[in-house]
Amino acid sequence: MVTTWPRDFPGLGTGASYLARTIGEMSGGRLTVKVYGGNELVPPFEVFDAVQRGTAEMGHGGAYYWKGKIPASLYFSGVPFSMTASEMMGWFYYGGGMELYHEAYAPFGVIPYPAGSSGTQMGGWFNKEINSVEDLKGLKMRIPGFGGEVLKQIGGTPVNIPGAELFTALQSGTIDATEWVGPMNDLAFGLFRAAKYYYYPGWHEPGTSLEATINAEAFAALPEDLQAIVVTACKAANLDMLAECEAKNGQALQSLLKEHQVELRPFPDEVMAELKRVSLEVIDRQAAKDEMSRRVWDSLQAYMEQVRPWTEIGSQYFVNRR
Amino acid sequence: MVTTWPRDFPGLGTGASYLARTIGEMSGGRLTVKVYGGNELVPPFEVFDAVQRGTAEMGHGGAYYWKGKIPASLYFSGVPFSMTASEMMGWFYYGGGMELYHEAYAPFGVIPYPAGSSGTQMGGWFNKEINSVEDLKGLKMRIPGFGGEVLKQIGGTPVNIPGAELFTALQSGTIDATEWVGPMNDLAFGLFRAAKYYYYPGWHEPGTSLEATINAEAFAALPEDLQAIVVTACKAANLDMLAECEAKNGQALQSLLKEHQVELRPFPDEVMAELKRVSLEVIDRQAAKDEMSRRVWDSLQAYMEQVRPWTEIGSQYFVNRR
Repeated sequence: MVTTWPRDFPGLGTGASYLARTIGEMSGGRLTVKVYGGNELVPPFEVFDAVQRGTAEMGHGGAYYWKGKIPASLYFSGVPFSMTASEMMGWFYYGGGMELYHEAYAPFGVIPYPAGSSGTQMGGWFNKEINSVEDLKGLKMRIPGFGGEVLKQIGGTPVNIPGAELFTALQSGTIDATEWVGPMNDLAFGLFRAAKYYYYPGWHEPGTSLEATINAEAFAALPEDLQAIVVTACKAANLDMLAECEAKNGQALQSLLKEHQVELRPFPDEVMAELKRVSLEVIDRQAAKDEMSRRVWDSLQAYMEQVRPWTEIGSQYFVNRR
Repeated sequence: MVTTWPRDFPGLGTGASYLARTIGEMSGGRLTVKVYGGNELVPPFEVFDAVQRGTAEMGHGGAYYWKGKIPASLYFSGVPFSMTASEMMGWFYYGGGMELYHEAYAPFGVIPYPAGSSGTQMGGWFNKEINSVEDLKGLKMRIPGFGGEVLKQIGGTPVNIPGAELFTALQSGTIDATEWVGPMNDLAFGLFRAAKYYYYPGWHEPGTSLEATINAEAFAALPEDLQAIVVTACKAANLDMLAECEAKNGQALQSLLKEHQVELRPFPDEVMAELKRVSLEVIDRQAAKDEMSRRVWDSLQAYMEQVRPWTEIGSQYFVNRR
């Protein structure tokens, strides 16, 4: 398994390791998965190619990294201003998402499964205060997926660099800002040492789904029980990462605020409103360009129309009054 | 596997069936699990006893049903005004919850695992309007776990009857109100035909965890790979049920409101405030009575102190502004 993360990086890398270990344990060693961190076998952004070619039989990463090959992959990581982690999971497993996900990757001989969720991400680390939409103009920021497209349309410069290079890029001034994941992951890279302000919420990635990719020929060669083990391990890994992020983001947030005196700030309402307006434009435009993207976006929209009223009177109403 | 639910009842029963099927598939038929609905082999509330005695090797149900035997079991289903489903999952897998859960059940020779989450439940079906705390006095309501204790302290009469008997009890006037789960499950029992008002939110069960119980001797007799298969299948089942509930509660809510003209109402703020005040009293009192309960409640409180600030700036902040 090649991955886009440093090996055993908290949450993301440990999630990949959990997946590999669980497959080994459940198969009684009939199927062992060796995990390679980013750059150990292939560079992070060549994970998809390696799985497609069969250089590796599995991969672990983020779907939006493959937007150049599969434009619709952007939607499977999650869409700005869309859904929380548990809402996303409902769409994948019981809302038609999985079928579309498989269809989009099928031409490449790659089978994708959700295999980890970060939960709601943070807005990111900034060396410039964001007090208005104007402050986003000219901003050079590491932000992948739809988030990057939105920043571009507003007048900023999105770049996509692997996680392991973020600290240096931020400290050297190569970029003005970066989002990464959430408190646990951000603390692990020490990003607070390279930036002044920590913004929330992660409007661009409200419930990011990470993925396992499997070489379709390698999968087809497995007997049925090992196939079931791989598929179920992905589902267990999906929950396991979310659980780890929930528990450890809480700890890490306290550490950032109390031990490292991080300046925590919400994006101003005006900025949130503009990001939302532009996000919908960007997502719609992408859907208009590509047939698969349109079908995925139609599916997501129909699902959101049902799930959001439920969230409103369920978990959202509750957390606002507990 | 004996269960407290009707076989293949949406969400709860289908969750138990998913768990059984997945174990069978992953083990290549070396371990097959036959599912019995409530009353098929033993009555719903004798599931724990059956697993303890070895009449059945697995069970599927709710931890709070066993509060007469294991007072601390109340805390493992979830606590009023406490946590959402994903926050609960963080506590179980990465916050010390699982270790306490196993310790509490160990004297009975039963091993528990979280194996399904309903997400935030609904407040329930009422034949009486709830406009003030006074309206809860004298109310005869099916409500298990801590919720029932809270209702009792406020002056109502909690009863606990299996799900399959709720419709008749409500329609015949044996009870004035009942909570059950959420829109999908409540629609399946046709509760809207027997009650006037549908209240939200489920203050008493904000992220209910359902459980698999395993006879400890039967588990110890399995080879390591089959043990890993059972444990991982429980984790996958935990996510699978939450995903099904997320997706189908949205659909069912629309059906209840549009096709069945259900009267949807929030509990008044005054009522919520009193329920919260009394809940904390009841939970604290239980913790003072029983050493294991105290340790579990201490663990939950310490965890909540970290996870809630994270939820506030993460998913809660996001859903309030999306």
